[in-house]
Order: sequence, then structure tokens, then C-alpha cells
Amino acid sequence: MSLHVFVLEMKKLLGGLDGWLTKAVAHAEAKKFDPNLLLQQRLAPDMFPLIQQIQAACDQAKYAAARCSGKEPPSHPDNEQTIADARKRVATVVAYLDGFTKDDFAGVDQRKISLPRWEGKSMSAVDYFVELVQPNFYFHLTAAYVILRHNGVEIGKRDFIGATTMRPAQEPSPQSR
Amino acid sequence: MSLHVFVLEMKKLLGGLDGWLTKAVAHAEAKKFDPNLLLQQRLAPDMFPLIQQIQAACDQAKYAAARCSGKEPPSHPDNEQTIADARKRVATVVAYLDGFTKDDFAGVDQRKISLPRWEGKSMSAVDYFVELVQPNFYFHLTAAYVILRHNGVEIGKRDFIGATTMRPAQEPSPQSR
Repeated sequence: MSLHVFVLEMKKLLGGLDGWLTKAVAHAEAKKFDPNLLLQQRLAPDMFPLIQQIQAACDQAKYAAARCSGKEPPSHPDNEQTIADARKRVATVVAYLDGFTKDDFAGVDQRKISLPRWEGKSMSAVDYFVELVQPNFYFHLTAAYVILRHNGVEIGKRDFIGATTMRPAQEPSPQSR
Repeated sequence: MSLHVFVLEMKKLLGGLDGWLTKAVAHAEAKKFDPNLLLQQRLAPDMFPLIQQIQAACDQAKYAAARCSGKEPPSHPDNEQTIADARKRVATVVAYLDGFTKDDFAGVDQRKISLPRWEGKSMSAVDYFVELVQPNFYFHLTAAYVILRHNGVEIGKRDFIGATTMRPAQEPSPQSR
């Protein structure tokens, strides 16, 4: 089992997010309101609005892939104003994740990660991925989804989960990946 | 990297959910409403209410651990009526997950999973975990969290993420796990 499969899953889910945003625009147009107003919606006054949920999900996926493979993550300033901007941000991260291979994560079990704000402390790359990146990624992704559902956008659970690698009954046992 | 660390993380996060429910009861008592009313709150008419989000998160974690290690998952009927019942359900699953060891998942890369409703199709256990269990688990867990936040319960992002395995600066590189 390679950490790469978890990175590929984040890439797939961000592709799903792009689809939700397309449906959000269609919903706003049908209801005759500015779709970009959705970006400022939030589910509690002290929670992030949609645009920040999207930015945070993008950042978690990007940092995960970069740091768990020992690369320098690219910087993406949080300056998106419209849904078109948000979709561009998502597409940038999807393309970035697409550049990683299984080999990039071959040394993950030995890798140590230390961020400036951790004041000298460190985490193993696996702990960082399991305990910080994934919970944060899914938190922000789900929050974005729920904000859209709460505002009437017609998306369902299948738009969240997306396609799965289901195999026909006859196929031999899967190879390790 | 063992799949066991991802199961341990789900166990930790369910422990966090138990803490949110404790704070939910305190919030309801301070506001003088029946805390069990929270279990019927939802963020869209066609989304699960809190109690079903909790039940679904519990089930995903239980099924993941059982199926990825080749065991028969225990059956937990969805008959919870109160927050006390919901906390008991969470505690049951946390205790169940606690019984698994790294060795239980040693064969996960070769394991194949097939559920009756898949009509003969199958998934590799790793694909099942990465593409179905985790997204579903985090979806329902985050939805439960957001329902509580939306209803004024005083929990924050730290209550979601929980404690992490941060190491002091001097410690040698982590061992693979």
C-alpha cells in the first residue's frame, strides 16, 4: 500500500468539487442570483465561508503531496474572488497532484516533517498525513459540500464519493499498489 | 505504512465525537432545551439528521476494520433515541476498533472485498478503504460536527483534529509503522 493512492483519491475528490461548483453556477442562474455570492456563505458565524473551505482543502492536498515526498510546495495566494477563480485554483492543484508517482512516496516511512510554526518539533510523514492532512482535507471538502447543499445546490452523495475501482466478478485478485 | 494507523485515527476521531456530544448536552442544558432534539437537526431537508450521521460514521469505521482484516463485522441496529444512546454506540465501536492490531492488516494488499449489493463485482481492500470507507467516514463525521456548530454548540477545529503525535526536536527519526 502506497501513500500515493491516498493522494490520487484527494485528486479525484477535488475533481468532484469542481463539478459541484459547476452545478452551483447552474443553480444560481436558474434562481437568478449572482453565483459568486455562494462563496461568502457559511454555516456558523465563526466558521470559514465557502471560498476559504475550498482554499483550505486545496492547500491540504498540495502540502500533503509535497511534504510527504520531500518537495517544496508551490505557493498559491488566497486571492480568489469568483467561482471561476475558485475553479482555477482547484484545477491548478489537481494538475500539481497529477505530477506525482508512486515512486515519489517510496521513502515516506523514513521521512520526518518539521514546519516553522512547530518550534523545532517534528512528525513522521505518515503521522502528518494521517493525523493532520487527511482530517483537515476532508473537513474542508465536506464543509464546502454541506454549504452548497444547505444553499439548495442539487448535488448528492454520489457527487461526493465519485467513481470507484470496482472490478468484474471474473477478474483475478488485485495486485498490491 | 500499515492500514492500521488509519484505523487508529478513525478510533481517535470517534473519541473526539464523543467529546462533542458531551459539549452538546452542556450547551442544551445552558439554553434550557432538550439535548436530544439536536439528534433530529439536519442542514438540508434531504440530508441525514445528526443521529444518522453518527450511525453512518460508526458503521464505516467498523466495516473498514472488519472487512480489511477479513473479519465478520458485528451488527449494530440503528435504534438510538437519545444522546446517551448515541454515545454508547460510539463507545461500542471505539472498543471494537481497539481490538485490532497491525498484524490484522498484514494481508490487506492481497485482500479482495465483495459485498452482496455489488452483484458479484469486487474491490481490492485498499481501494475499498481509500475510495469508499474513508470518504464516507469523514463525510458523516464532518456533517455531524457542522450540524453541532450550526446549532451553536461550542466546539472548534481542535476538537475535530484532536491530539497529534508531535515529537520533540531532539528525538531520532521515527520508525516505520
